[in-house]
Amino acid sequence: MWPAVARRRAGLALAVLAAALALEALAAWRRRRRPVREVLFFPSRVTCTEALLAEAAPPGACRCPLPRGDCPLSRLLRRLLSARRSLEICLFAFSSPQLGRAVQLLHRRGVRVRVVTDAQYMALSGSQIGHLRRAGIPVRHDQDNGFMHHKFAIVDKKMLITGSLNWTTQAIQNNRENVLIVEDAEYVKPFLAEFERIWEEYNPINYTFFSKENK
Amino acid sequence: MWPAVARRRAGLALAVLAAALALEALAAWRRRRRPVREVLFFPSRVTCTEALLAEAAPPGACRCPLPRGDCPLSRLLRRLLSARRSLEICLFAFSSPQLGRAVQLLHRRGVRVRVVTDAQYMALSGSQIGHLRRAGIPVRHDQDNGFMHHKFAIVDKKMLITGSLNWTTQAIQNNRENVLIVEDAEYVKPFLAEFERIWEEYNPINYTFFSKENK
Repeated sequence: MWPAVARRRAGLALAVLAAALALEALAAWRRRRRPVREVLFFPSRVTCTEALLAEAAPPGACRCPLPRGDCPLSRLLRRLLSARRSLEICLFAFSSPQLGRAVQLLHRRGVRVRVVTDAQYMALSGSQIGHLRRAGIPVRHDQDNGFMHHKFAIVDKKMLITGSLNWTTQAIQNNRENVLIVEDAEYVKPFLAEFERIWEEYNPINYTFFSKENK
Repeated sequence: MWPAVARRRAGLALAVLAAALALEALAAWRRRRRPVREVLFFPSRVTCTEALLAEAAPPGACRCPLPRGDCPLSRLLRRLLSARRSLEICLFAFSSPQLGRAVQLLHRRGVRVRVVTDAQYMALSGSQIGHLRRAGIPVRHDQDNGFMHHKFAIVDKKMLITGSLNWTTQAIQNNRENVLIVEDAEYVKPFLAEFERIWEEYNPINYTFFSKENK
């Protein structure tokens, strides 16, 4: 049997350890509970995004002349690349090569990607929409006079990325733009419902490009 | 003196009243503390907004054929018209007559209105910018190649209105658009700082439209 002093010391050490574990668990719980609330502003300098987008190359292998470090584009890419199950994209204009690569990478990783876009803009030179379709990603578009002018994405049904930014190099590097990254359900749920509404409305079986006489 | 039964009943009634008042106060406190979190989607039918915008006419006096009731535009107008002290507006395109009237109304009520807009779009036919300037509202604009593509407003430094919607009749009535109305400080503060940054950068004393040789 241990002497009384050793028993007291062991008891004290156990109590300190238990308190430290409890504090750590509380801190982890608070970190986990806090929803993401981030704001990005553009334009910004663009840094090398190869470490985020390359599938095979080890980090730091890129020899491009772009500066290293974080920038609004790399932060946006990181949020997108956190998708594990689903990604809904609803974009007026999509021509950024880096964002296109990120979406294709997620598709290859098995994330269910769906894209809604604007009919007038999807075929413009530099558009990523054709690349996404060839990669096997389903894309639907409007067929009426108004623009499909949304610029949002939803990651794993729980994180909304929305703002003024079209996913184009012009917008990222030259325009004054904003992007909100939001996990509050009050915002995410209505946008998810809007996506599903548009997805159904733009179902190709509903297209009426040709009048009935021509069918 | 009251008999014991009456005293007990009066005591019970008082206790119930106190509990009801306490619950009501708690509910009012919770209502007051809860930040606005609203999402509007466009396009939508447009209802008559005269009751909101008319300064003299009694409500219901308008004889226009538009339907009555609420719509996303009237909700947006109501949020804007809640301004009491300040309104910062940062808009790529602004041509909606109803939203223009709301901004002028606030200006006449003594709200400090400041507008930032895009140089390429502000002089287009139908733009409200000229009307706002003639009314005495200060407007500043970019002078570079990129677009000033933001679409946000800040009411009384505490409510952010932002999204994909330019303030144009085309966007309101024909496009797929979104507007978030947000009181969370994590979003409002960065947008306010962005507005002040742009406001200073677009100060006319910094304009360099003319090369030095021509000055």
